[in-house]
Amino acid sequence: MNILLNNRIISRESFTVDLEDRGFQFGDGIYEVIRIYDGFFFEWEAHLERLVRSAKELMLPLPTAIHTLYQNLQLLMKDSKITNGTVYIQVTRGAAPRFHAFPKETEPTLVAYVREMQRPLEQMRNGIKTITTEDIRWLRVDIKSLNLLGNVLAKQKAVEQGGAEAILIRDGIVTEGSSSNLFAIKGKQCFTHPANHLILNGITRQVVLRLLNNSELTLHETSFTLDELLEMDEVFITNTGQEVCPVIQIDDSVIGKGTPGVYTRQLQSAFEALLGAVIPS
Amino acid sequence: MNILLNNRIISRESFTVDLEDRGFQFGDGIYEVIRIYDGFFFEWEAHLERLVRSAKELMLPLPTAIHTLYQNLQLLMKDSKITNGTVYIQVTRGAAPRFHAFPKETEPTLVAYVREMQRPLEQMRNGIKTITTEDIRWLRVDIKSLNLLGNVLAKQKAVEQGGAEAILIRDGIVTEGSSSNLFAIKGKQCFTHPANHLILNGITRQVVLRLLNNSELTLHETSFTLDELLEMDEVFITNTGQEVCPVIQIDDSVIGKGTPGVYTRQLQSAFEALLGAVIPS
Repeated sequence: MNILLNNRIISRESFTVDLEDRGFQFGDGIYEVIRIYDGFFFEWEAHLERLVRSAKELMLPLPTAIHTLYQNLQLLMKDSKITNGTVYIQVTRGAAPRFHAFPKETEPTLVAYVREMQRPLEQMRNGIKTITTEDIRWLRVDIKSLNLLGNVLAKQKAVEQGGAEAILIRDGIVTEGSSSNLFAIKGKQCFTHPANHLILNGITRQVVLRLLNNSELTLHETSFTLDELLEMDEVFITNTGQEVCPVIQIDDSVIGKGTPGVYTRQLQSAFEALLGAVIPS
Repeated sequence: MNILLNNRIISRESFTVDLEDRGFQFGDGIYEVIRIYDGFFFEWEAHLERLVRSAKELMLPLPTAIHTLYQNLQLLMKDSKITNGTVYIQVTRGAAPRFHAFPKETEPTLVAYVREMQRPLEQMRNGIKTITTEDIRWLRVDIKSLNLLGNVLAKQKAVEQGGAEAILIRDGIVTEGSSSNLFAIKGKQCFTHPANHLILNGITRQVVLRLLNNSELTLHETSFTLDELLEMDEVFITNTGQEVCPVIQIDDSVIGKGTPGVYTRQLQSAFEALLGAVIPS
């Protein structure tokens, strides 16, 4: 496998990172995962804009201009010969003698690589079981940073309990999934946590918000409790890999009839139609 | 410089870490910094016990037994020819295709290296100025993990405002410093935040708790507010590098007379006496 290191495509084996790269010692870095459908980077502008935002919030200099990065990602994808998958992009602050505050001068480390990935059709068709756990993450999860232990421990708990995702609850309020955003529908009302510092404003979340504009559902970006969630007719999660994925169970509670709901199905269809429309064939 | 990589001492330049090491992508790892005085690892049992605890809390396997690690650290120190400094030890969960939950099988990556360091005598003699900032870290800071962005941003804010440390405030309560524990004295009462999941239970903190047993101060491991902190007679921080370090200013408020207090001085003397007693000459 080849990877992108700053502006060069090199073999994965020849990649080295300094022991004192701040990504390795502090998680001092940011990342994005962009979906590749048929050789096309889906919503790449939104992903790269968010990368710039995360960098700005952490006062992290990016090593290349965004248009250069985009061109490099295109070269990387061609080199990989992968047309359906994801590209992972990570920027860390670079190496400096270990001290918490930012070093005066470092050269940031940008790495990116492409992986093959198929759409998780079974999950998308049948829905997933989930668990709930306390949201113990820091208060700036709107930054897509490498400080992911809270997400890791939540997902691990889900896996141990036979769930596909962990739904995070902070002070009784449903925030999001460990690697997804969460939507819930009651009647014709659709609810999702507002995009503040307590959730990561997912790119797929933003796509779904636009799709909701053309649906008969009324959107409420407002917080709700776990008790309220369990009374919803339909629940689904969104993320880059699982797109719009129905949730049919939360802990021991079955959602709706225990099968993907009709509005969730409509949104999945609308998402697929969007893919058909935006991806050059 | 040479470093320890698992069980081998290698040159720093020959160190490589896999792109998908979970330390690099999730901050999925733990660390310790042990002080070396005159070729002696100060409080090494306590540090290595805490490493074991952090590993257990994250279900992170350690690559070597602790007594083997200790022997390796001795070899590393000899190799470095450094007799006064610190050894930094870090263990990450190792490399696996990126997915939040723990991989089934990975080989953890342990790295350690020694750096020279002098005691910051001027800070210890004259005291330091500090700032306050909101404690936005996750709710398991009792684990000495690599998810340190909250600490990094706080320290950076301190540096930008001409302070040497940031004092963290969560919901109005003083928790600790960005890389230190905090103690405050009023009359003959000494206060510090209890060692729960909201602070890192520092090894120097634990030493000071023992020293307080032999002082005329009464210890209260209890939480207090920022307003209460500003009314204290004396404030000091503790950590591996700065030992017992007086705080003479917090934001715009001068503490006591703006000089290190008498009890802080006594604790510094007691700490020095301890060093003289435990370090073989």
